[in-house]
Amino acid sequence: MEPSGTVPTTHVRAGGQVATRRTLPEETPVAMVYDGTTHAVMMASPTDIEDFATGFSLTEGIVTGMDQLASCETVAHDRGIEARMWLTGPRAEALNARRRTLAGPVGCGLCGIDSLEQATRALPVLHRQGPALTAEEIASATDQLCGWQPLHDRTHGVHAAGFLLPGKGVILAREDVGRHNALDKLIGALARQGLDAELGAFALTSRVSVEMVQKCAMAGCTILIAASAPTLHALRLAEGAGITVAGFARGKEFDLFSHPERLEAEFRHVA
Amino acid sequence: MEPSGTVPTTHVRAGGQVATRRTLPEETPVAMVYDGTTHAVMMASPTDIEDFATGFSLTEGIVTGMDQLASCETVAHDRGIEARMWLTGPRAEALNARRRTLAGPVGCGLCGIDSLEQATRALPVLHRQGPALTAEEIASATDQLCGWQPLHDRTHGVHAAGFLLPGKGVILAREDVGRHNALDKLIGALARQGLDAELGAFALTSRVSVEMVQKCAMAGCTILIAASAPTLHALRLAEGAGITVAGFARGKEFDLFSHPERLEAEFRHVA
Repeated sequence: MEPSGTVPTTHVRAGGQVATRRTLPEETPVAMVYDGTTHAVMMASPTDIEDFATGFSLTEGIVTGMDQLASCETVAHDRGIEARMWLTGPRAEALNARRRTLAGPVGCGLCGIDSLEQATRALPVLHRQGPALTAEEIASATDQLCGWQPLHDRTHGVHAAGFLLPGKGVILAREDVGRHNALDKLIGALARQGLDAELGAFALTSRVSVEMVQKCAMAGCTILIAASAPTLHALRLAEGAGITVAGFARGKEFDLFSHPERLEAEFRHVA
Repeated sequence: MEPSGTVPTTHVRAGGQVATRRTLPEETPVAMVYDGTTHAVMMASPTDIEDFATGFSLTEGIVTGMDQLASCETVAHDRGIEARMWLTGPRAEALNARRRTLAGPVGCGLCGIDSLEQATRALPVLHRQGPALTAEEIASATDQLCGWQPLHDRTHGVHAAGFLLPGKGVILAREDVGRHNALDKLIGALARQGLDAELGAFALTSRVSVEMVQKCAMAGCTILIAASAPTLHALRLAEGAGITVAGFARGKEFDLFSHPERLEAEFRHVA
C-alpha cells in the first residue's frame, strides 16, 4: 500500500471551477498483535510498520527492550495491516496479567487504558544531564526536519518526528498522518538501529500533548522540541518526568517551558 | 478546571534570553461512563463536557437519539472528569451485548474497536440533496470559524468544528485540543439544542481523517468543509457514505473531492 496517491478534484475559486488533481496521504488501520491477540488498532500511514510496532511496544511498556520482542512480522490485508509480534516468555506473561486486570470494563481512547488513574500512568523520571545542544541547534531543529519530510512535501498533510544529535543536526526522522505514530516510528527506528535516544533530542512538527511526553519519557529522551504549543498537562508531566520541553521552535527562536537548567549551562557557553 | 492557563517561560532568540509568559491550553482525561462502567477515556479540553458526552454517544452509535440518554452528569476529579451517563433500558442492553463481544482481546486506539474489520465499520449512507450552500459560503467557512475560537485566540493550540447554515453562516462552534473531540462536542451541542445536522454543513480547522467522516455520517450531515487535506481513506469512506468533502477551504477557494453533484446545481445558480 502506497503512503500517498493522486486523486481528481474540482478546484473552486471565485465562482469558477477547474478539474485538477491533488496528492493526498493514505491512512490505514494497523493492528498491534501480540502472541496472536490484537492489543490495539491505530489509523496510520502505511510506512515503516516494523519501526511503528517496535516503538509502540516500547512506549506502551509492553517490552522494556528489543531483546523481549522475539519477532515482528508485517501482514498486509485488504482492510489494513497487521503487525504480528511474539514476546519472550516473561513479557508475554506480564501482558496477559495486564489484560486480565482490564477484562471487566472494555476501554479505549488511550491505548487500552480505561480509567482516569491509568490515563496518567506513572512515568520514568530522567535525571540525566542530557545532550549539550546549543540554542541555535534547538531553534533550527524543526526547520531542519523539513528536509526529512518527503511524504509531507507531496501531500501537505502529515506530521514528522526527528532525532537530533549535538553537532550533527537531525540524523533520522519518520512521518505519519498521526503525530503520535510518527514519534512511535522514530523511537522504534532508533531502537532497531541501536541508537540511544538518551544522546539526543526529539523534534516534532506538531504540538506537545500528554502522550508525546509519555512516549519521550518511556524512550529515555530528555529534550523535546516542538514547532507548536505544549498543553499545560503535558508540561506538568514533563516537569515530573525530568523532560525539557522547548515549544514554538521555529526559525531562530523558541520558548523553554520545563527544566531549563539542563540547557542553561550550554547556552551560557555559547553566549 | 480552566481550559487554558498562563505559565512562565524563557523565550530564547538569537542567543539572548528573556523571561516571559505564555497562555497554553489545558488537556484532561475525560471518562465516558455508561451505567457505571467506563467505556472510553479521551484527553480533551475541559469545556462543554455534556456536549462532548452527548456527541460521543451519538457518533459511536451508543445511542441513536437523545431520548435514549436518560441522564448525563459531569463529575470533576483531581485526575480528570467523568461524564456519567445512564441509558434507557434497550440501549443499555445493546451496549452490554457489544461489550461481551469485545471481552476477549482488549483493544483500543479507535474507541473500543479492536480489529481491522471493526476499524472501518459500516456507515449510514446519506442520499439527501443537502443544504444549498454557495461556493462563497463554502470557501469562507473556515475563515468564519476564526470568530468562534476564543480558546484558540488565547492559546494558538486548539481545533474548532463549526456548523454552517445556508444564508446564515456559522451559527455554532466548539473547540478542543483534539479535532475529533471538537466535532463530537459540536454534534452533541446541536442535538442538545434540537438543531438538525442535516440542514447544514460541518466546518473544521483541521484535516479530514477517517474518524471525522465517520462522525459526520453518524450525525447525518452531508457536507464536510475543512481547512486542510483529507486522507485517501477518508475520501473512500465519504464516497461510500454519500458525504461531500471540501478540503483546503481557505480564503476564496477550496477543492471539492467527493460527491460534487450535491453542490454543482447550486454553483451554477450562482454563476
